[in-house]
Amino acid sequence: MNALLSADRLAEFFAPRSIAVVGASDSSGWCRFIAAAAPAVGYKGPLIPVHPVHQTVFGKPAVRSLRELAEPVDLAFIVAPTAAVGDVLDDAAAAGVRNAVVLASGYRETGPDGAAQERDLVARAVAHDIVLLGPNCLGFLNTSAAVAPYALSVPRPLQPGPVGIALQSGALASVLLGFAKARAIGVSTVATVGNEAMINIADLLGHLVADAATRVICLFLEQVTDPEVFAAAAERADRAGKPIVVLKAGTSPAGRQAALAHTGAIAGDDAVVDAMLRQLNVIRTTSIEELLSTAALLGYDRWPRGRRMGVVTASGGACDLIADAAATQGLELPAFSAETAAAIEANLPPFAAARNPLDVTGYLLANARTSALTSVDRALDAVVDDPGLDFVLFSGVNLPDVRPPDPVLAGQLDERIGWLTRRLESAPIPVIPVAPTCVDVAGYAREQLTPRGIHLLGGIELGMRAIGNAVRWTERAGTVSAPGVGRRSAVPGAPMPWSEAEGRKLLADAGLPVVPGELVQSAAEATQAALRLGLPVAVKACSARLSHKSDVGAVALGLGSAAEVAAAYQRVRAAGERAAGGGIDGVLVTAMRAGGVELLVGVTVDPAFGPVLAVGLGGIWVETLGDASLRLLPVDAAEAGQMLAELRGLPVLRGDRGGQPADLAKLAKVIAGIGELAGDLADELQALEVNPLWVTGDQIEALDVLVITGQETELAA
Amino acid sequence: MNALLSADRLAEFFAPRSIAVVGASDSSGWCRFIAAAAPAVGYKGPLIPVHPVHQTVFGKPAVRSLRELAEPVDLAFIVAPTAAVGDVLDDAAAAGVRNAVVLASGYRETGPDGAAQERDLVARAVAHDIVLLGPNCLGFLNTSAAVAPYALSVPRPLQPGPVGIALQSGALASVLLGFAKARAIGVSTVATVGNEAMINIADLLGHLVADAATRVICLFLEQVTDPEVFAAAAERADRAGKPIVVLKAGTSPAGRQAALAHTGAIAGDDAVVDAMLRQLNVIRTTSIEELLSTAALLGYDRWPRGRRMGVVTASGGACDLIADAAATQGLELPAFSAETAAAIEANLPPFAAARNPLDVTGYLLANARTSALTSVDRALDAVVDDPGLDFVLFSGVNLPDVRPPDPVLAGQLDERIGWLTRRLESAPIPVIPVAPTCVDVAGYAREQLTPRGIHLLGGIELGMRAIGNAVRWTERAGTVSAPGVGRRSAVPGAPMPWSEAEGRKLLADAGLPVVPGELVQSAAEATQAALRLGLPVAVKACSARLSHKSDVGAVALGLGSAAEVAAAYQRVRAAGERAAGGGIDGVLVTAMRAGGVELLVGVTVDPAFGPVLAVGLGGIWVETLGDASLRLLPVDAAEAGQMLAELRGLPVLRGDRGGQPADLAKLAKVIAGIGELAGDLADELQALEVNPLWVTGDQIEALDVLVITGQETELAA
Repeated sequence: MNALLSADRLAEFFAPRSIAVVGASDSSGWCRFIAAAAPAVGYKGPLIPVHPVHQTVFGKPAVRSLRELAEPVDLAFIVAPTAAVGDVLDDAAAAGVRNAVVLASGYRETGPDGAAQERDLVARAVAHDIVLLGPNCLGFLNTSAAVAPYALSVPRPLQPGPVGIALQSGALASVLLGFAKARAIGVSTVATVGNEAMINIADLLGHLVADAATRVICLFLEQVTDPEVFAAAAERADRAGKPIVVLKAGTSPAGRQAALAHTGAIAGDDAVVDAMLRQLNVIRTTSIEELLSTAALLGYDRWPRGRRMGVVTASGGACDLIADAAATQGLELPAFSAETAAAIEANLPPFAAARNPLDVTGYLLANARTSALTSVDRALDAVVDDPGLDFVLFSGVNLPDVRPPDPVLAGQLDERIGWLTRRLESAPIPVIPVAPTCVDVAGYAREQLTPRGIHLLGGIELGMRAIGNAVRWTERAGTVSAPGVGRRSAVPGAPMPWSEAEGRKLLADAGLPVVPGELVQSAAEATQAALRLGLPVAVKACSARLSHKSDVGAVALGLGSAAEVAAAYQRVRAAGERAAGGGIDGVLVTAMRAGGVELLVGVTVDPAFGPVLAVGLGGIWVETLGDASLRLLPVDAAEAGQMLAELRGLPVLRGDRGGQPADLAKLAKVIAGIGELAGDLADELQALEVNPLWVTGDQIEALDVLVITGQETELAA
Repeated sequence: MNALLSADRLAEFFAPRSIAVVGASDSSGWCRFIAAAAPAVGYKGPLIPVHPVHQTVFGKPAVRSLRELAEPVDLAFIVAPTAAVGDVLDDAAAAGVRNAVVLASGYRETGPDGAAQERDLVARAVAHDIVLLGPNCLGFLNTSAAVAPYALSVPRPLQPGPVGIALQSGALASVLLGFAKARAIGVSTVATVGNEAMINIADLLGHLVADAATRVICLFLEQVTDPEVFAAAAERADRAGKPIVVLKAGTSPAGRQAALAHTGAIAGDDAVVDAMLRQLNVIRTTSIEELLSTAALLGYDRWPRGRRMGVVTASGGACDLIADAAATQGLELPAFSAETAAAIEANLPPFAAARNPLDVTGYLLANARTSALTSVDRALDAVVDDPGLDFVLFSGVNLPDVRPPDPVLAGQLDERIGWLTRRLESAPIPVIPVAPTCVDVAGYAREQLTPRGIHLLGGIELGMRAIGNAVRWTERAGTVSAPGVGRRSAVPGAPMPWSEAEGRKLLADAGLPVVPGELVQSAAEATQAALRLGLPVAVKACSARLSHKSDVGAVALGLGSAAEVAAAYQRVRAAGERAAGGGIDGVLVTAMRAGGVELLVGVTVDPAFGPVLAVGLGGIWVETLGDASLRLLPVDAAEAGQMLAELRGLPVLRGDRGGQPADLAKLAKVIAGIGELAGDLADELQALEVNPLWVTGDQIEALDVLVITGQETELAA
């Protein structure tokens, strides 16, 4: 992190009490947005136009330069053209201004010349002790500080609230605000980072973790610019109990699959970012609407305590859809307790049963309304006391946009809303209100719900996705430890593969299980070794210069007799020497394994994120289905167990194909051990792959090992 | 179909010009809804309350019985209690009323007694020549006929339009109307079917296919009540160019997987309904919002002509998300032609390139606005002429909810909307407008767009799902032929398995490829057969009484010598006779096949839908991943090819695991042939399973065959 970007400086940056707009002009669309944003957020401080020529802008008198300010402003929003920005920074420094947003584009995004200009810009800001957001940046708004140096439209009303938002896309900021407005989701700070020349997305994340007004953080990411700072901030968020919800662009099934199947392609891939986000318990979503809905749930509602969901609705069709979504999200719908069911049935038609999910039916509509509470309310009242539930999905708030003109009905509704507010607060378990579909929360409904802090999730689909996200988040909350993310300090040397015997020794010395084998130098030694190991055996030429042994005929498998072993020795040795272009280390004789399940456990090095551990099943699983789980190192046995649990091929490990169920705890330890070994190779590591790692029951053995380091091992030893 | 339910009678039913509400009461919530629905839809006809006691209801004079009507009404909406409904039908008949909606519940849904009452109700209606909707039904509304016998709230404004909606859930009707209102999606008819005692969902589908005001049909299904009528109506919809979009509840991964893996469990399963919907080119969606968004696209926009999408936006982040979604939906984003790119670049900053998807950036905001058209408009103007595109996603309509108070800005906006309307119409390829996120279309934006028939899809996620659905639909539109859906006419007999030799003969006689084999009666014959067939061979005891040969030791595989064959013959014969409890037909000696890919091709019989063909790859594919494709019979080779294309295991057939790529055209023919053979067994069929069907390149052979019919084959022959 840049030394300028202390927590205090960032807090100061995002809460300026006075602003100058440099390059301000009535004809600029951006400036019109900046002028309009101030009242939208209730900004009361000075907003001073600065322009070398214009006398007035926004109907206010302009000064010609920041140097002409009577006293320094907290923030300069620089809208001036690219060529002028450097001089404006000098003016700012001279005027005692410590913070600047730069809107101009034409920097890094245009190529090498622009990148050089951007470096100059940062250097100048650093020299001036100026904190800089941008360039190519549309600014931010902060509802708790009531300030909005923000060059985009602000959908109104802008509602203050718990959701802090940071984006690597400028224009999407107001799209997110549009959905937040529609769904009555309150925001704390919304900031765009532009080119991230100084303040990057990870710094901003860190600021939002520290920001008292922010209870949950939304990020729109195109990449993770500074993984180390990002991971550390995410760990702090976890300690602080602030969920992070992410929408990251740049997924593509083809790319992801390729990355999983081919070690080299993992670098910089979305799959690596995804692995880091999983480790950091960051919730990853797939749409703007899911991003904000998930954040709203976590920002407004009490968090689900487990997977046992009670459902109260007034629609059988909604119950069907919720049950389907519950299966998708891995949520349970336990039967209500006898007491709960009895309490509910008092308000149902005589023939109806109190099932979970519950449809209270339209039965009570048959008669005149005598009470403020409806049948869904009475059902909710009973269900929240059910001891077998962790939370309740309540699809029954259902307020009109317009206050009923009939004063009796209006009074009943007021009474009902009061009761609901109290019951949501007093309920022993969290109640999560879900609207039947995704429409705006407007008018009377909004006026009633917003001051009471009641949020309605926007429909069954979005609501259930948000609930699933929240449940999974809570299960891991408080347990995050940031992986050792980081770029390599040194440029890697030329790749130097180890011989298989050296790789086997590395594993064995670390106490990891390797299939029994012996390195031999003659056919006679080979047959003796084979008889010691037990037939059948495999024989393979062994040399650091042989990386694709099978392709050159330097491997023979399933040798069932001494004669076969002797013959194979000669064949394999000759082929190996031919391919290696000279002498080889010898021939490896190893026991053969049949049955069981074969896994791939590999570590490669991402240039930005460091060592990445990949685990998958062999055969079609990784290669055809791209079914692999990734993590950044270090990975402990618990995390390795989590990786196995993510595999679609897990049932195979559990023995569904008739094999012996794998000892998953032991397997996870071995996988973690392989990761640790790779981590111990530190900056020399280029790849370490155990393929296959064979497992049947509690028998686990590495059948083949490939190690590649960046320097000659003799030198490293 | 009930003889009463002619197209004319249904058309009459859903467009009544006069309505009586029987059992009307001001205290009933349902009646209040009915009274409020009339003005919401602009109903001008009589709405006559009928009640034995009340003098006035809805502020209108009531009559005591339908018999007291001065002239018959077109429709009686019967809100009277269950016990009174029968008498009301008698009154209706006496009064000359031909159509009735029954709201009361307490029928089939309560058990056998209720079901009997429901049958009586229908019999009485039929005797009276009355068409009946319900019972347990909340009615319908019809915007083109301006009538709404509808006992639910109507979100206002209710917008007439192209989308016809039928639901098996009552309460969801108004939820759908709520989303339609929010997104300015116009509806033609919205109808709920209740218990479907007479008019069922398939009849209603048929009516909407015939309804001139309906251009696209939305269904919410809990089940397909009358598959034969449904399929025939869907075929008519295809002929008429009316897309059908479905949201069907009752999916569950566990259930589906079980159904795919175990033949018996397919019956009545969601997977079978899914198969039928695929064959009928019915679009299946997973949420209320996707259902209506897809329908709106198909109802308002010109249909995409292919998968090549041009994208015009003002946000790089939106471009990222659209590109991700395009990959998910299988859409292409070809580069713009040189002419298109040049035309776009005239309006971009000097350093920006005209990429697809296109972000026009905020560049033009730097200067004063001089024209009504914005940079997205100018880009759209160029992109629609690109010869390499099939359609354009346009995320740039972006109108405010409030008309700009500045008359100059307002005038520019009016001019812009006029231009957009003309350009959408004149564009050589369809333009599909997509809003940046899912918020209500309201106020000024709604006023401008609705009369011009411009619909905005609600955000990138919903928009891209709708576009993907529409593209896939158009690719198959006009080609639907209804499968031979139908319940069995007879009760199936006790299951009678055939011997494998009989099954092999059935296939071979039909010209389908079966692995070479011979039925033998001695060890000597077995060895001779083995030598003729070529070693290695398999031997299996053969008898109709042996359904699980391997489990009882009556199978030996991979026999590589005459001696092994002879020994296996004795062993297998003895095991077979022991398990069959007596003599067996003989021992089958068959050639062994190695390499290649094994498929499962099976036909089972669903009691409601008839014979169902399932195709999947062996091993983990069907059993662990549930990767199978289903269809109702008959299935031709083209449809069988489509089934193979749906398999996730398709890459394996294409040779990605190093095998020879399968001749997919030939394989599809064999699969269709197996389906045809099963169809020929007609009502006797219980199951026909080829498992495995072995394929390598253009070599295809059934390695094992199981046939089960419902009567003894001797009797059937």
